[in-house]
Formats: sequence, C-alpha cells, structure tokens
Amino acid sequence: MKPGYLIGLDFGTLSARGVLVCAITGKIEASHTHAYRHGVMNEALPDGAKLPPLWALQNAPDYTEAAEAILGAVGRGKIVHGIGLGFTASSPLPARADGAPLSVLYPDDPHAYVKLWKHQSAQAWAARINAAGGDFLRDFGGKLSAEWLLAKAAQIADEAPTLWAAADRFIEAGDWLVWQLTGQEVRSLGFAAYKAQFVPGVGYPQGIVPHLREKLSDPVPVGRAAGALTAAWRERTGVLGSAIVAVAVIDSHVVMPAVGAIEPGVLVGALGTSAAFLLLDDRARPLPAGIEGVAKDGVLPGLWCYEAGQAAFGDTLDWFVRTFPKASEPSQNFAEYNAAAALLAPGQNQLVALDWWNGCRVPLGDSSLSGLLVGLNLKTTAAGIYRALLESLCYGTRNIVEHLSAGGAPLDRILLTSGLSQNNPLLMQLMANVLGRDILVPRIDHATAVGAAIHGAVAAGVVDGYAEGAQRYGATSFLKYETDKTALAAYEILFKQYQILSGDRSVRESMHAIGAKPS
Amino acid sequence: MKPGYLIGLDFGTLSARGVLVCAITGKIEASHTHAYRHGVMNEALPDGAKLPPLWALQNAPDYTEAAEAILGAVGRGKIVHGIGLGFTASSPLPARADGAPLSVLYPDDPHAYVKLWKHQSAQAWAARINAAGGDFLRDFGGKLSAEWLLAKAAQIADEAPTLWAAADRFIEAGDWLVWQLTGQEVRSLGFAAYKAQFVPGVGYPQGIVPHLREKLSDPVPVGRAAGALTAAWRERTGVLGSAIVAVAVIDSHVVMPAVGAIEPGVLVGALGTSAAFLLLDDRARPLPAGIEGVAKDGVLPGLWCYEAGQAAFGDTLDWFVRTFPKASEPSQNFAEYNAAAALLAPGQNQLVALDWWNGCRVPLGDSSLSGLLVGLNLKTTAAGIYRALLESLCYGTRNIVEHLSAGGAPLDRILLTSGLSQNNPLLMQLMANVLGRDILVPRIDHATAVGAAIHGAVAAGVVDGYAEGAQRYGATSFLKYETDKTALAAYEILFKQYQILSGDRSVRESMHAIGAKPS
Repeated sequence: MKPGYLIGLDFGTLSARGVLVCAITGKIEASHTHAYRHGVMNEALPDGAKLPPLWALQNAPDYTEAAEAILGAVGRGKIVHGIGLGFTASSPLPARADGAPLSVLYPDDPHAYVKLWKHQSAQAWAARINAAGGDFLRDFGGKLSAEWLLAKAAQIADEAPTLWAAADRFIEAGDWLVWQLTGQEVRSLGFAAYKAQFVPGVGYPQGIVPHLREKLSDPVPVGRAAGALTAAWRERTGVLGSAIVAVAVIDSHVVMPAVGAIEPGVLVGALGTSAAFLLLDDRARPLPAGIEGVAKDGVLPGLWCYEAGQAAFGDTLDWFVRTFPKASEPSQNFAEYNAAAALLAPGQNQLVALDWWNGCRVPLGDSSLSGLLVGLNLKTTAAGIYRALLESLCYGTRNIVEHLSAGGAPLDRILLTSGLSQNNPLLMQLMANVLGRDILVPRIDHATAVGAAIHGAVAAGVVDGYAEGAQRYGATSFLKYETDKTALAAYEILFKQYQILSGDRSVRESMHAIGAKPS
Repeated sequence: MKPGYLIGLDFGTLSARGVLVCAITGKIEASHTHAYRHGVMNEALPDGAKLPPLWALQNAPDYTEAAEAILGAVGRGKIVHGIGLGFTASSPLPARADGAPLSVLYPDDPHAYVKLWKHQSAQAWAARINAAGGDFLRDFGGKLSAEWLLAKAAQIADEAPTLWAAADRFIEAGDWLVWQLTGQEVRSLGFAAYKAQFVPGVGYPQGIVPHLREKLSDPVPVGRAAGALTAAWRERTGVLGSAIVAVAVIDSHVVMPAVGAIEPGVLVGALGTSAAFLLLDDRARPLPAGIEGVAKDGVLPGLWCYEAGQAAFGDTLDWFVRTFPKASEPSQNFAEYNAAAALLAPGQNQLVALDWWNGCRVPLGDSSLSGLLVGLNLKTTAAGIYRALLESLCYGTRNIVEHLSAGGAPLDRILLTSGLSQNNPLLMQLMANVLGRDILVPRIDHATAVGAAIHGAVAAGVVDGYAEGAQRYGATSFLKYETDKTALAAYEILFKQYQILSGDRSVRESMHAIGAKPS
C-alpha cells in the first residue's frame, strides 16, 4: 500500500461534504462541508422569476463551486489516489455537448436548471407513461415515479420543446460533475438503472420521450474509473497524485461498503426522515411483490440490489413531539418521551398504528394513504401513543423485510444506519424485538462520504475490490441489539393486527375518501 | 292553583340535591346539596374491611340522612304539595319486611349493602343468565347488563345464601327511600321495567334467581302518588302541607318533563361524561336493532321510551385535554382547543375517529372496542385531532339517531341537555351540522331536580298531567342551533366513512386482539 489519501464526496440536497481518508490507516484526517449557493430553488429562479408549485431546482455551477471548495480544503498538497462521489438522484439537467449546463445559456428558462430529485411537477407525465405501460417497468413494479429521469425529460420535451431541442445531453447531476472533474462523460449504471430504467444488453426504454435517446449515453457499472482529475482542477484545488475519479453513485447507495454491506443477504436500512432499504442479492429474480425496484451493477458490481422504503420515518416522530411537546425545553422532548415509552411493556399501550403519515411506499405504493391509530381508550397516555409510533415504524420495516423475503432472496444480516440508529436505542431495541432478528448498528462517522472514498479506492486500484475496501476503510465495529424472545411473542400478535389493518381494502378506501380535499 | 311549593330531589352517585319550586310562579326559591356520608364504597366497608375488585356499594342510611338534611333546609315551615325524586339505578339493597336495610343488621357482610349502579362484579352472573336466554330480554336486545337488578340478585343468592334468605325484600334504593318517606312500599315501574325486566300483565321474569320473586312487589307507573310524608318525617324536617310523595324515577329519566319532553317523537340526549338518549313513542314496536331497551309507563305514563347511549362522551374530550394540555392554565384547555378547532372547515382536518374510547354501547353493545383515529399525516394538528373527537361524538349520536329511526319510531325534535350542551357551543353546532337537524338546548337550571318536582306536582294533583307540569315548571326557552347546509354536505361524506369503519368486522376483531392484556 503506497502512502497517500482517498477523498469521498457526498453531494446531498442542501450541501456537499468531503472527507480525506488516509489510504494506509483508514483514518479520516479532514472533512469539509459546503452549502450550495442557491440551495433548493422551489419558489423562484436566481433572477427572482417565480416558479410554479411543486417545482424544485438546483443550479449546476453550485456543484462545481462546492467541489472546488471541498477538494481545496481537504486535498490541497495531498497525494490523492482516488476520489469517489455519491449524489442525489434523479437530479438531471440539460447540457450542451461541451458540458455547459443550459442554465448558464438560458438563465431565464426554469427548464434549463437541474430538476432536483424532489421536483414533483412531472406527475402528469409519469402518469401518462404509466398508463401506456411497457416491459421496461417490469423491475420497478410497473410504476414510473414522477421523481425519475424519464418523467422529468417528458415534462421538458412537452413544456419547453425549443430548450429540449437545444439540449445535446440530458444527464444526472452526479454524472455531470464527474464529467466536469475528469473531462470524460462517463455515466453511472447506478443512475441509469434505477432512475432511467436502463438494462444492460437492452438499453434505455425506447419511444417514451422524443429525442431522449440521443441525449443519453450508455453507462458503466459502479466501481469503474471515469478518468483522472483534469489539470485545470488540480491547479484550482492543489490536489496531487493520480486522483482517479470513480463513476458516481446514488447517495443512498454509496454508503454500502462503508458499513460492510458488500455481499448477498445483507439488508441495509438508512433511517432518516424517511427510511430507505437496500438488499443485496447474487442472482436475478422476479421483483418481489410490493418492492420498488431491482437492478444489477448499480450499487456494487456483480450484485443485484433491491430498493424499498418507508415514506415517513423520523418525520413521524418529529411530528409527534412537535405537535404534542412534552418537555418545557424542546430539545428534551425526545429524551422525555423515550424515557417514558421505555417503561412500557410490549402491548401495554394497547395500541397499534399504521405508519402511513406520508402515505405507504412499500408494499402499497400509494402516497394518498394516511396514518391510523387504533386501541385508544380513556387510559391511553401520550407516551403510549409515542411508543405506538415507534412500534409502527418497526412493523413497517418488518413488513418490508417479509415482502423482500417472499421473493426468495436470502436475508442474513440487518444493518441499520443514519441518525435514528445512533440516537434512538429504544427504537433499535424495538426493531430487534419486532423483527425477531439481531440488529447491527455500524459505528462509523461520515459513512456516506467514506463509502464514496471506498468507491474511489476501488476505481483507483488502491484496494483489490470492495471486500478489501470495506475492511480497510469501513466500519469495523457494530453495536448489536438482540431480540428479547418474550417481547417478540407479544409483538407477533400485534404485528398480525398491523398486517390485517394494512391489508384491509375498505380502510384504505376510507383513507382516500377522508384525505380528499372537501369540494 | 293554591299557594305552596313543590320539592324535587335528585339522588346522584355522590350526593343528593333538592330544589324548592313555587307552585304558582315556577320559580326555584331554594336549593340544597348534601354529600353522602360514606360516598361510594369501592375499596372497603365502613369498618375498614376490604372489598374485592369491581365492587361499588352505598349505605342506605346515608340516603335518609341526605333526605332529612335537604327537606329541612329547603322545606322547613313551607306548605309543600308534592315531592318527587329521581334516583340512580339499578342500585338495589336487601331489606327486612319492616324496611330495615340488612346492612344495619349485618354491617360486616358486603352483600348487605346497596349495590350501586356501577358495581361491576356481577358480570359472571349476567353472562350466565344471558347464556340461558329467555323471552324477558326481547325488549333489551337479548342482553342483561351486569349493572341490572337480576344479575346483582343472582350474585347475592350465590355468594351469600344465608343473607339472601334473611332478605324479605330486594328493592331499588329509590323505591326504598320512598318507602321510608311514606311508610308505603310502592315500587316504580321505571326501575322495574328497565332494571328488572318487569312487563305489565306478565310480571317479573321467572326462575332466574331462587326466591327472588317473593322479595319483589309489583310496581306502579310513574306519576302516581306513593303516599304522604309520614308524621315522623314532618316532625324531623318541618315540612308542612299535604306533601304527597310520587313514586321514584330513574335519575336519567326524571329530567324529561323539565325540558318539555312529554310527547312522542322527542329525543332527549343528556351529554355528560357519557351520553344517554331517550326517545318517546306512543305505541309498541319491536326494539330497533342495536338500541338498548324500551318500556312503557317507566319514564312518562302512557308512553314507550327507548334507551340508547354513548359509553364515553365528555370523558373522551377530558382525556384529550388532560393527555395533551394546550394551555399553561389547565382550566383554559377547553377554551383554547375549542377556539382553534372552530377555525377549521368541515373535513379540513382530514380525520375521522370512532368514538369508542370506552367501548361502543349502541349499536354494538361491546365494551371491549376501542377508539380509532384515521387520516393522520405530517400536517395534522392537535386542534385538528380535538375537532375530530368532537366530530366523532356527533357521528356516534347520528348513528344512534339512525338506528332509532330505522325502527319506525318518529323523531321530530332533538333536545340536548347537561353540561356539554351548555358549555360547548361548538359541539352543539357540529351536532346540528352532522345530524342535519336543528338542535334545541333548554335554558333551565337544576333540570333533573325540577323534573322530579314536576313528578311530585302530577302525583299531588297540583297540575293536570305532565303537559301542564312541563309548561308551568319546565324550561320555557331553548337555544336553537341550525344546520349549516354546506357543512352537512361535507359531513355526509365523512359520516359515511364512520359507518364503513364502524361496520368493519375485521377492524373490530383487531381491537379485541390489541385490547387483550399481554399474557
């Protein structure tokens, strides 16, 4: 192992973070965060022009500005072997053949900007594409999301045909940034497979959006080198060494090697405001019912990876403590509710909730569903309801696990990451008790950025693949939560009720009727 | 009309209240309240001996003590034409043929005391009687309550056979008090019909409890004179005049003439911690499905009266503001929640609740059901939930109204009385909007005691029946809440969801599974 460093970049929704990792010791020697100059534009363009509702844009030059700041801050004067990056997706932008973003050329046209992953106004085009149907949606439950590239492309082609004609490229922002850093347009199979329904050997779906095909290029599997950092970037940032840049990875996927998730049978759940689950598999299988999607070579090379999620997770708990504050000091609300909820035995609150505060992503794929609470009586306490919400999040996770397993993929190990896995030990113990499986919480800082650094290490040949990368630079210790068998027995009965209630079509129809705005 | 007074007595759970009403003007000239010396005994007897769980006893001499204090306080030196009384039921006691309560003779035996209406430990005997079945339950939905006289008698006969043998009489406390005041054992058809399933011309049910029949006597319709106040009572209280005492009336029934409810087609709802509904009818009909019971001559002479109720009403709202206090000053919680809830449009909270915080009395007769809340999302507010609870109480009332109407009885007018009808105008307006009918709230103080005074006036011949009694002494003005047609249209959709959810057998089975204590 030759002395030097790796850099991992994590381009999130509001800011980008970078870490400098010592290639020999694996230690994080520096980190830096840079907020995007224009943040998320959902009300107006930089010049003040108003945006319609449900829009969410970003400005591509903000990314290069952030990359320059971060690489300079952590990499100046350092021998850097490899650089990897994770990026939000699908966040595509129209660009010219020379890489210039159209927003630089047509700053007055909203359609010239990056359509951020949470841009919601392409719903009508997603619905139109879904109505037409097609084989290309087979691995995605037959349903295109309005957040994905095809819907966003269709919206531009329809609403701004002149601009669409001016776009030589339509490209994910992560791929665009790699192009800027290396001078090479090398797209990632991660974005292409999960967000544009590209299938190796088949290609992109045909005939969905006029002239889209010519604006795309074929992607390569993750872990490949896209190229080396250009001379101009080296000059601007002071980075030394070979500085090989890996193809980009979806931000929620890039964490996998950092937490040791590199082999079939590992399920990783990232528990944030919502929850995202990834399960690795070593063979092609039909997409299990209710699961969102599956693709090969997009998360780790040679492996299939299923995607699933809960639309509200930490958000639901935040809602509760915000709506019913317990402590006089807001920062103590969670501590006080957790302490009170921890005193209750399983089933003692006599409540079951459906965790649909933001709709149900998996297995029902219905964002118009809503939360339900049953079992309320005159002795119900606030802490009992809070605990019911914690438990409902665990039921939702178990439901995903059972749907994944029903598809036949082995599931040997569950790793839970992100904020709540660190901050809420009660929730983690409930997960172990409801799922009837040990829960492992990796002990690691900046996991997403470290995962990106491992991609850089693999691309640069610093390590001989992800197993070595994970072992050298990823989490080496795990906090383990073991199932309490008595609690599990109680939760079997309650989870059964969760299944019955969530499977009750009549209840879901009532949710639709109640959620509809009054005329 | 000859100068003089009427006295109305209202014997409640913790205390008795009396009013002195001028027979000519109808004005309340005095009132007095007296708490029972031993209150409700649910943990121990007066001598300290512990009681088993679910017991609730009272001591009969507390009633005569209260009667003496009240009659003396309001009636001393007054010409009193008639006295009426309302009493809790079923609250029976064993007594000797001379009227002595067995508790005076056997103070160490818990079975010698009054079994208060909310004594719950006779459940096993009610279940046994229900399992055997019988025609006598036809007008009570086929189901004997553990709170009624037959179950309580069966418990004594079984658990204390020697004491049972020593009881010459088994008598409702209200009838017992009339016996004490007049020297005549004259029982009320109100108690006998609703609490002991007596049917005129048929009699009491036979063969249910050994030797019960010989301890009962046939009742007379309400409105009759039981006798005059005895010389001893006159001496003790200073009451002058003919002082005719009417037969006793169930406390929840006695209010009817005081609020002008004296004719077929009038529904009265008493909205307290729970809600009790009474609908008057002029002919015999089969008991409507889900309604609790019907009898003739027990509430007003010549009329049938259906009973129905919601097991939790004000209790549910109390639970919410206690569990999620909004104001820094507890007494302001209701005001603040009502103010916030009043700002919401119908359906704006996107919530529907089932009002089963204490089970469902009508139409399901299942105390093990629980409350349900559906439609929760990340924008749901505390005031939105509070409003959903108010609305759910209205849906529960509408459901009762619809079940009553389905039986064919006309329903022309709805009167709502008791605390919440006075204190919560928002709830009353929601009632009008959800029910699609005008709501009348009588303006009257001490309505129950005034109702008892009217019974005294009828029994004493001071007035020519209840119509005149109601007109002279009852409420003469009403606050009217009219339906907002736009709101009604929105609530039709939401009430439909209430019906669907409450009719979902699978949801109810989940409630049973969730409510069961963990093993």
